[in-house]
Amino acid sequence: MNDIIYGKNSVLEALIAGKREFNKILISKNIHSDAKLNKIKELAEQKGIIYQFVAKEKFAAYTEFNHQGIIAQISPIKYMDLDTFLELQHTNASIIILDGIEDSHNLGAIIRTAVCAGVSGIIIPSRRNVQVNSIVEKTSAGAINHIPIIKVNSLTNAVEKLKKSNWWIIATDASAKDNYYDINYCDMNSAIIMGAEHAGVSKSLLKASDYIVKIPMLKDFNSLNVSNALAIIIFESVRQKLTKKY
Amino acid sequence: MNDIIYGKNSVLEALIAGKREFNKILISKNIHSDAKLNKIKELAEQKGIIYQFVAKEKFAAYTEFNHQGIIAQISPIKYMDLDTFLELQHTNASIIILDGIEDSHNLGAIIRTAVCAGVSGIIIPSRRNVQVNSIVEKTSAGAINHIPIIKVNSLTNAVEKLKKSNWWIIATDASAKDNYYDINYCDMNSAIIMGAEHAGVSKSLLKASDYIVKIPMLKDFNSLNVSNALAIIIFESVRQKLTKKY
Repeated sequence: MNDIIYGKNSVLEALIAGKREFNKILISKNIHSDAKLNKIKELAEQKGIIYQFVAKEKFAAYTEFNHQGIIAQISPIKYMDLDTFLELQHTNASIIILDGIEDSHNLGAIIRTAVCAGVSGIIIPSRRNVQVNSIVEKTSAGAINHIPIIKVNSLTNAVEKLKKSNWWIIATDASAKDNYYDINYCDMNSAIIMGAEHAGVSKSLLKASDYIVKIPMLKDFNSLNVSNALAIIIFESVRQKLTKKY
Repeated sequence: MNDIIYGKNSVLEALIAGKREFNKILISKNIHSDAKLNKIKELAEQKGIIYQFVAKEKFAAYTEFNHQGIIAQISPIKYMDLDTFLELQHTNASIIILDGIEDSHNLGAIIRTAVCAGVSGIIIPSRRNVQVNSIVEKTSAGAINHIPIIKVNSLTNAVEKLKKSNWWIIATDASAKDNYYDINYCDMNSAIIMGAEHAGVSKSLLKASDYIVKIPMLKDFNSLNVSNALAIIIFESVRQKLTKKY
């Protein structure tokens, strides 16, 4: 079974990461050569991966994607098991738990930001949440290859396991009293739960959390996009870790 | 000349803001009534705006948009003049300057985050930057109605004008020495320049800036999405303003 990834960045990052099997790479005869394309061809040759130049009509099935004239058929990403993740050494680490994110672009953007912030893993539930697909891979700009995605059947069970393994659980909720910057992220392993754009974090998870925080707004308006909200919180933790100030 | 806006949130927010003329609202006969739709009908009736229930085939031309069975034909947004903006009273305010943002979703997300952060205005150049279109309006989740968009012919001239009016210019650049949180945003009017995802902020604007800052990464990877980068910086300024700590 093959996944399709598309765009120069996605294909290049998957080649560099080297974690997935490539069936083949298709390159439109109409695209111009550049440094990225040359690097893709070089890596494919090194790794014995087939690439073919094809007529642009071959891409007709992929017009919904911004493929830039290049797609690759590769094995699906390997999800990590939560137990395997917990056996690794974690010190002052962060993970993100996604509770009901529906939009592929949001998941891709979250993965990209998480990698930049040095996050150790992302937990998604196997139901009621978007899974990793071609749009997620593309929006993540290749970041999907640099972070474990942990799929679990029950977020509630996952949170209980994390707590037993000395992780602190931080949920976000618009009606929280505490602000996200009131927490000291420097001396703990923190798991940050982000909820669906409309429904928010589910009640059972809020109840199981050690902290519930909000992002204070300077103007009373609707709400932030979930990937932007996550970026604000996770980079506050980065700021604290780098400056030791909170 | 009419713009098309689509989706319940976009239409509702435009009605509430009341800044633009409505030609008419088209509602699919197939959508279910809910609180938002009822509010839209109520406001339209109050304001004497025509709404029509139409067969879903009427929406065939708009399938590329996630219209949720509702569109409105309205007058284009009114851009604000920079001189008009500068005549307003600004104390400890923020504005955002966009230099070459190409993606409509990014512009929409930036506008949404800017409103939540209480930003006073967004400056875009009349060329080499995406303009406000239907996708921008939808992605902004109606935020476009709550913030002045200032269109200028030359960003360089705009920056010079801002400096003369006692605004401090902060540009973002991956190779900067200072971090975005090293600046005290509490005691000044700050204008934050965000660059294109690939090219960054143009050299002439970097040269004209008072500060150049970066977002430090915990993992050396590609880069952040521009709307996430902006969210991180602007909410650091919000944090400082609310806590008086920096």
